Amino acid sequence: MRLSRYLPILDWGRHYSREAATGDLVAALIVTIMLIPQSLAYALLAGLPPQMGLYASILPLVAYAVFGTSRALAVGPVAVISLMTAAAVGKLALPGTEAYATAAITLAFMSGLILVAMGLLRLGFLANFLSHPVIAGFITASGLLIALSQVATLLGIPGGGQTLPEMLSRLAGNLGAVNPWTLAVGAAATAFLFWVRKGLKPALIRLGLAPRPADLLAKAGPVAAVAATAAAAWAFDLGARGVALVGEVPRGLPPLTLPSFDPAVWAALAGSALLISVIGFVESVSVAQTLAAKKRQRIVPDQELIGLGAANLAAGVSSGYPVTGGFARSVVNYDAGAETPAAGAFAAVGLLAAASFLTPLLFYLPKATLAATIIVAVLSLVDLGVLRRTWTYAKADFAAVAVTILVTLGIGVEAGVLAGVTLSVVLFLWKSSRPHIAEVGLVPGTQHFRNVLRHKVHTVPEVLTIRVDESLWFANARFLEDAILDRVAADSPVQHVVLMCSAVNAIDMSALESLEAINARLRDMGVTLHLSEVKGPVMDRLERTHFLKDLTGRVFLSQYDAAAALGALPPGADPAPDARPRAAE
Amino acid sequence: MRLSRYLPILDWGRHYSREAATGDLVAALIVTIMLIPQSLAYALLAGLPPQMGLYASILPLVAYAVFGTSRALAVGPVAVISLMTAAAVGKLALPGTEAYATAAITLAFMSGLILVAMGLLRLGFLANFLSHPVIAGFITASGLLIALSQVATLLGIPGGGQTLPEMLSRLAGNLGAVNPWTLAVGAAATAFLFWVRKGLKPALIRLGLAPRPADLLAKAGPVAAVAATAAAAWAFDLGARGVALVGEVPRGLPPLTLPSFDPAVWAALAGSALLISVIGFVESVSVAQTLAAKKRQRIVPDQELIGLGAANLAAGVSSGYPVTGGFARSVVNYDAGAETPAAGAFAAVGLLAAASFLTPLLFYLPKATLAATIIVAVLSLVDLGVLRRTWTYAKADFAAVAVTILVTLGIGVEAGVLAGVTLSVVLFLWKSSRPHIAEVGLVPGTQHFRNVLRHKVHTVPEVLTIRVDESLWFANARFLEDAILDRVAADSPVQHVVLMCSAVNAIDMSALESLEAINARLRDMGVTLHLSEVKGPVMDRLERTHFLKDLTGRVFLSQYDAAAALGALPPGADPAPDARPRAAE
Repeated sequence: MRLSRYLPILDWGRHYSREAATGDLVAALIVTIMLIPQSLAYALLAGLPPQMGLYASILPLVAYAVFGTSRALAVGPVAVISLMTAAAVGKLALPGTEAYATAAITLAFMSGLILVAMGLLRLGFLANFLSHPVIAGFITASGLLIALSQVATLLGIPGGGQTLPEMLSRLAGNLGAVNPWTLAVGAAATAFLFWVRKGLKPALIRLGLAPRPADLLAKAGPVAAVAATAAAAWAFDLGARGVALVGEVPRGLPPLTLPSFDPAVWAALAGSALLISVIGFVESVSVAQTLAAKKRQRIVPDQELIGLGAANLAAGVSSGYPVTGGFARSVVNYDAGAETPAAGAFAAVGLLAAASFLTPLLFYLPKATLAATIIVAVLSLVDLGVLRRTWTYAKADFAAVAVTILVTLGIGVEAGVLAGVTLSVVLFLWKSSRPHIAEVGLVPGTQHFRNVLRHKVHTVPEVLTIRVDESLWFANARFLEDAILDRVAADSPVQHVVLMCSAVNAIDMSALESLEAINARLRDMGVTLHLSEVKGPVMDRLERTHFLKDLTGRVFLSQYDAAAALGALPPGADPAPDARPRAAE
Repeated sequence: MRLSRYLPILDWGRHYSREAATGDLVAALIVTIMLIPQSLAYALLAGLPPQMGLYASILPLVAYAVFGTSRALAVGPVAVISLMTAAAVGKLALPGTEAYATAAITLAFMSGLILVAMGLLRLGFLANFLSHPVIAGFITASGLLIALSQVATLLGIPGGGQTLPEMLSRLAGNLGAVNPWTLAVGAAATAFLFWVRKGLKPALIRLGLAPRPADLLAKAGPVAAVAATAAAAWAFDLGARGVALVGEVPRGLPPLTLPSFDPAVWAALAGSALLISVIGFVESVSVAQTLAAKKRQRIVPDQELIGLGAANLAAGVSSGYPVTGGFARSVVNYDAGAETPAAGAFAAVGLLAAASFLTPLLFYLPKATLAATIIVAVLSLVDLGVLRRTWTYAKADFAAVAVTILVTLGIGVEAGVLAGVTLSVVLFLWKSSRPHIAEVGLVPGTQHFRNVLRHKVHTVPEVLTIRVDESLWFANARFLEDAILDRVAADSPVQHVVLMCSAVNAIDMSALESLEAINARLRDMGVTLHLSEVKGPVMDRLERTHFLKDLTGRVFLSQYDAAAALGALPPGADPAPDARPRAAE
């Protein structure tokens, strides 16, 4: 049991079925076809020789398959991490030099160490601070950015840019250069893939196929698009007509290497390695969680850290560079039917085979076909309806979604996630610092107390019962002081104040000092302070202080007991036993 | 009323009494005597001509007296801000040049603008995030640092250093150079001042004086020490025996100036100005709050921002440099009996007069006497007992105190405050993300439900009632999912799960999605989910979603209603009316 905690492969590997293998193999094939040109492109983005992208897509995938918990995450070079690698390594060496490549390898190794350390220290709970609104906003915005980044390829024009405004302005500037042949291939592939997604399976079933082979055939749709467009490109010599093809891919197995152990290089890269690790984990975990939730599966964030760390360590000893779970790629992997992490290992084998044998066949593949595959995959993740749903439900959640989307589109993915998380936490702290405070009275015929403003309840002018709907802590301690003292000062007949603590889950030192101040000031006014329904853990704390001795009134087990003892029950009500000791749960 | 909100002088000025004036004048006199050498020393620390320290102690004090709300805060140049000024301005010009002085003046002006803007935008609530433990730790550690910084002066040896280890190593290295005459003066002054603090007033009362003049005379103690030691230094020519004297002080009125309006200078100083403003405010507000709490007074953080902003704007137009509430100085001001902000204005007059007429009399004042005044004042703030008290009460509060003290002593005051606040917030978030969850049952003879582990309560195996002691939000949503599903999966007879929401003060979008997941998964298990005691604000939210329609069970007004409807009451219990609609407070 303990071993399978750290080696999830022992868990899913035991029940590995033929159906899972079929799904994994199909997914691996499609991911392989996607991954070859992506790896090359992202390595160039990182300022590295293209084959390093391929190397980063072989051993790291096997390592993640052994240690990772997500059944759909496709690990490898990704755009954001490639850009961050270029920025980090560019501080140390010039692109194209050996020192530059070594630094990138070292960065992957350091990032692996950091991730494994975080995993062993169980820091994965930090991912819980990525709220649903932030994840939803991040995925929607990233989907838009990825799709838009592929539109240029689809049109056969130069694209690029990191943000929505940049991308739109470059697209607009180059619209005159649209290549009609590329557009034809891209539009046909996109239309075909959308039809495959929505219409093929029902059509096949109508033609008499059983649902299972219909599903499998529908999942092979992208492969068919790749084969058909590559054949068309060869037959009509589309390369000569300006259609961008994948072209010649360098061949070779990943050479095993060691990272640099120069302390100066480590010191220079430490900050970047930490940032890349955290961003990579956060991005990867949000993708993994979204895909896991769709199948009611669970990912284990602490083990994900170890899985991603192992993948980066593998990249660091096999001439790779930093990797993480890819966004579009994982979606394609999921959509293509990946059932277990084995899909990643199969994709590694596929990549190895492709790099050795199949590259000539990929020569004629139009890049527009790959762009179409990505667009169709990521557009299904774009969910702008989340803006409306959160607006209706709670403005704080809406703000988190909106800020995440806007910052991701306008500034970048890391900034978007960080802005969303920061805003969510700040809004939570802000709300906790101004709690809802209700004056309550007895619901007739029950022993239940509710807000006087919302219910017909019984109260007496001498007894003021206040329910604070928040734990008492430093950010709201003074707010409580003001609220209670203002309320009592404005109402002279009050003889007793009962603080109903059913919603007070904790009282910290600052709040305790505020309670002491409230008790002392009410005593000066001739008013007695009581507590009711104090919870066990809170009472345990209070009993270790002198507050209960200084308290002018009593601590009642229930609010009904308090009302009975203070004469606040309506005539004829069941008198509660009043002789209970100061007790709490 | 509205005007006096922004001009607190209209409020306290109306009731200004002879007693208050006496206290203010005595305090102003002592603060003036303290402030002259301090201003000179801090200006040199900032790399500025000494007279700029004096200028920063005249008009800014008047401005704060008009706009500030603290009755004890003594504004002026302080050590931390002086150091930060040197760091900020040193990036632009060389010390001693006119550009350097102009940049410092500009920095004060910019800091003033930032503070006033924060005040008008009501960002003063940020000070609530300074918890009592952080303030207590910060004040204790700062008191130790300030006292230790004065020990070198008391011994007549070179001191210096920003942190405890630095100070101790310099003191230890210079112990051989102790000047016996300085030590004699310093030790005598310290002993005298401690006696004045503790023993003089009772002694005077025993001699037949009324308490009020006894108090006043006791407060004049530091003045007596200053006069006596200055006279002794003159009479015994202590300056020639190696006792450091205040010496010659340059004379003159503050020249009115304008800050630089060069955009390049503003851009270069913007970050530093923001940091100086925030640190200055945080430091000042914590001093002001501590001193206000001792007299059950209140400071208004938003107005404090305006008061400190006005002081810095005043510094920026009168050849000063950034100022804030001084720590030791405010304590001396408070101890000397300052009753209102007028003490500051009087101190400004005193400083003006001293700069013009009295400097020759200060020539012979031993610096050791001033050091003794500061030590006696700040040691009363050192409260290491807070470590024990917080350890007993709550480890989180203890951690905040300990980290604040250690970081302040070991790294610096800004780092200490920031570390304390950050740790407090992180611990709060951490606790909220792992809430206390209790299974509850009916307390016999009542309608009150309590934890089955702490109370003898009635339960039935078919109905599981769970009380979550925390608002449901993104950081704990998954925790709740796991807890409920694990509990139900382990207990087959459960037919109904009731989520008692008396402690749930909010449910955010992430938690709503978790509740939907819990509802769906329990339905798959054949278990019905109910809610009880949902609060009004929470119910308002839920009613705007489809959750209540999807809910397999019902929403009960009270837990007792739920138990009655689900057959979980003990035989013979009062059957509650079960026909109430889905309702909430």
